[in-house]
Amino acid sequence: MTQYRLTPLADALPSTVPFVGPETQERAMGRAFSARLGANENVFGPSPSAIDAMAKTEQWMYGDPESHDLRAALAAHHGITPENIIVGEGIDGLLSYLVRLMVADGDAVVTSDGAYPTFNYHVAGFGGELHKVPYADDHEDPAALFAKAAEVGAKLVYLANPDNPMGSWHDGHVITRALEALPQGCLLVLDEAYVDCAPDGTAPDLPADDPRLIRMRTFSKAHGLAGARVGYAIAAPDLITAFGKVRNHFGMNRAAQAGALAALQDSNWLAHIQAQIAIARDRIAQIASDNGLTALPSAANFVAIDCGADGSFAKAVLDGLVARGVFVRMPFAAPQNRCIRVSCGTSENLDVFAAALPAALADARKA
Amino acid sequence: MTQYRLTPLADALPSTVPFVGPETQERAMGRAFSARLGANENVFGPSPSAIDAMAKTEQWMYGDPESHDLRAALAAHHGITPENIIVGEGIDGLLSYLVRLMVADGDAVVTSDGAYPTFNYHVAGFGGELHKVPYADDHEDPAALFAKAAEVGAKLVYLANPDNPMGSWHDGHVITRALEALPQGCLLVLDEAYVDCAPDGTAPDLPADDPRLIRMRTFSKAHGLAGARVGYAIAAPDLITAFGKVRNHFGMNRAAQAGALAALQDSNWLAHIQAQIAIARDRIAQIASDNGLTALPSAANFVAIDCGADGSFAKAVLDGLVARGVFVRMPFAAPQNRCIRVSCGTSENLDVFAAALPAALADARKA
Repeated sequence: MTQYRLTPLADALPSTVPFVGPETQERAMGRAFSARLGANENVFGPSPSAIDAMAKTEQWMYGDPESHDLRAALAAHHGITPENIIVGEGIDGLLSYLVRLMVADGDAVVTSDGAYPTFNYHVAGFGGELHKVPYADDHEDPAALFAKAAEVGAKLVYLANPDNPMGSWHDGHVITRALEALPQGCLLVLDEAYVDCAPDGTAPDLPADDPRLIRMRTFSKAHGLAGARVGYAIAAPDLITAFGKVRNHFGMNRAAQAGALAALQDSNWLAHIQAQIAIARDRIAQIASDNGLTALPSAANFVAIDCGADGSFAKAVLDGLVARGVFVRMPFAAPQNRCIRVSCGTSENLDVFAAALPAALADARKA
Repeated sequence: MTQYRLTPLADALPSTVPFVGPETQERAMGRAFSARLGANENVFGPSPSAIDAMAKTEQWMYGDPESHDLRAALAAHHGITPENIIVGEGIDGLLSYLVRLMVADGDAVVTSDGAYPTFNYHVAGFGGELHKVPYADDHEDPAALFAKAAEVGAKLVYLANPDNPMGSWHDGHVITRALEALPQGCLLVLDEAYVDCAPDGTAPDLPADDPRLIRMRTFSKAHGLAGARVGYAIAAPDLITAFGKVRNHFGMNRAAQAGALAALQDSNWLAHIQAQIAIARDRIAQIASDNGLTALPSAANFVAIDCGADGSFAKAVLDGLVARGVFVRMPFAAPQNRCIRVSCGTSENLDVFAAALPAALADARKA
């Protein structure tokens, strides 16, 4: 017997991780990436007022465990109440709390095959059983997700809109209509991490008190604060209250709370970023086209590029890009893994990508 | 049936929280505290180089999920290997991961009655059964803790050295000798959050690979970075590796990683803080004495003051201080709850405390 004793569940969990970080790859390569375009970060950065607010924060004090000021501002921004909002350590942290609240040994959960692996990691981590449905024409398929949820008696069903890794999206009305088929006793986790990059109307027009769903939002993408770790969820107050049973009450970084509040209030900066993202998406599509590849339409801060063959070929293209100092990632599941996924970058970042892609493709075709 | 379904465990958990934050109290009072002396924060603040490192961090990037540079520096600092170290979102976050790895339905855990409530919160949150032993002469009692662990077959036993909330401590040799009675299959969680404030020799001289214990350290106390949320644990590599099964791999704030690294390297600042803490402890003891009360010896950045009566009386003193703008806390369990707990503050903070205490005592004696 070892000195410590893991639970049977923990003992059975794999030691693999959802994502290897770019710093790990850089250390293995012995040099830094020239263009960091793999983690859907926002290289254009946060609002200057957010940077200022973070720098001014006195970090000797614990953060407010209620995130009161940020929740109040978010409530005003969305026209809802603070009781509809929980702030947490990024969407990843909130997904962990949510899964912990709902999922135990063998409980059924539904997601799309190839959707966000960190959600799957949490489901497995609490002993849930994942059921997956395929993408439909590179879109997550709400009708199929909810039908599968009914079939397996799922407690949670995960849907990202816009989707990661494909960048595809549904108009909010599609989600609203599909929700009519959500089975009783099943909660929709609607991950809207990228909704600030999407056309108006992508977020379904549903009240915050709607008991059928919980919406996840983040300051990591359009607001440029991935390193700060600030996400929030919107749901009915009784569900929001339940997070208080399990969350790390003093888990929020105090500067991050202040930075997110400042970022929320700088709508001009957000508009500036949205414009930069649109420009970068167009440029990525042009680079794809220049190389005879097809960029998929995207409502996110990244673009999936169809490399025109199978997953092995796309992986070879990705490896060629990485070897040339361009950090990108790709979808995990077929047939979406025929693509590589390129995050929006600066003009200079995309110059590096444009310079590296032809040789990466040529190498992949030779392999 | 509600739309969402909590697990039976989550459904049964209370909605209470371990600690109410000072901001919550301030909002309820409608004014700010004049002296924030309740959360064992370090008002003297972090190293200027840590502040600078945080301000320079580009928060648009996710933090390195391996916290590689910080772990490397910590390993060099302690003369151990990075494989002995896991960095996490404060000790609170690390305790949550540890309890999750080890504790499920009905598993036995041992702690002292009145010790750190957040540990208890995590144990309850994962379905563990807490067994408590009393303090011995205001010290945690290693022999009693380990005997109880043997009696109930505990998987974890918690011991803080120095102790919070009493400030008492054991020489490291006491811990080392007591460990001989730690039962097989039980892991000691040695919380050393305050060890940087303690006399040399308080930390037991045991190898990082010792399979009997995991040590918890933090940048929240002597390093003045409570708001940043950086803690770390030291243990044998196989146990450290297990954290990778459940932790939020991208949970660390990027600026916090940089700030902690800079703080670790500024040993002059740490020495300055240790001197300030010693001065403040002496001043708190003098204020207690001036009011006919007894300060307990402390090896932490706070002092427990024996108010000379029972818990109700100490609570009345605490309420009188809070009403006069002084944020303090007190132990939860008898007979330690005859005390109030006052964090080290600046000279100005302690002037406020000194001015408020006589009237708070007088009111408590009238009640």
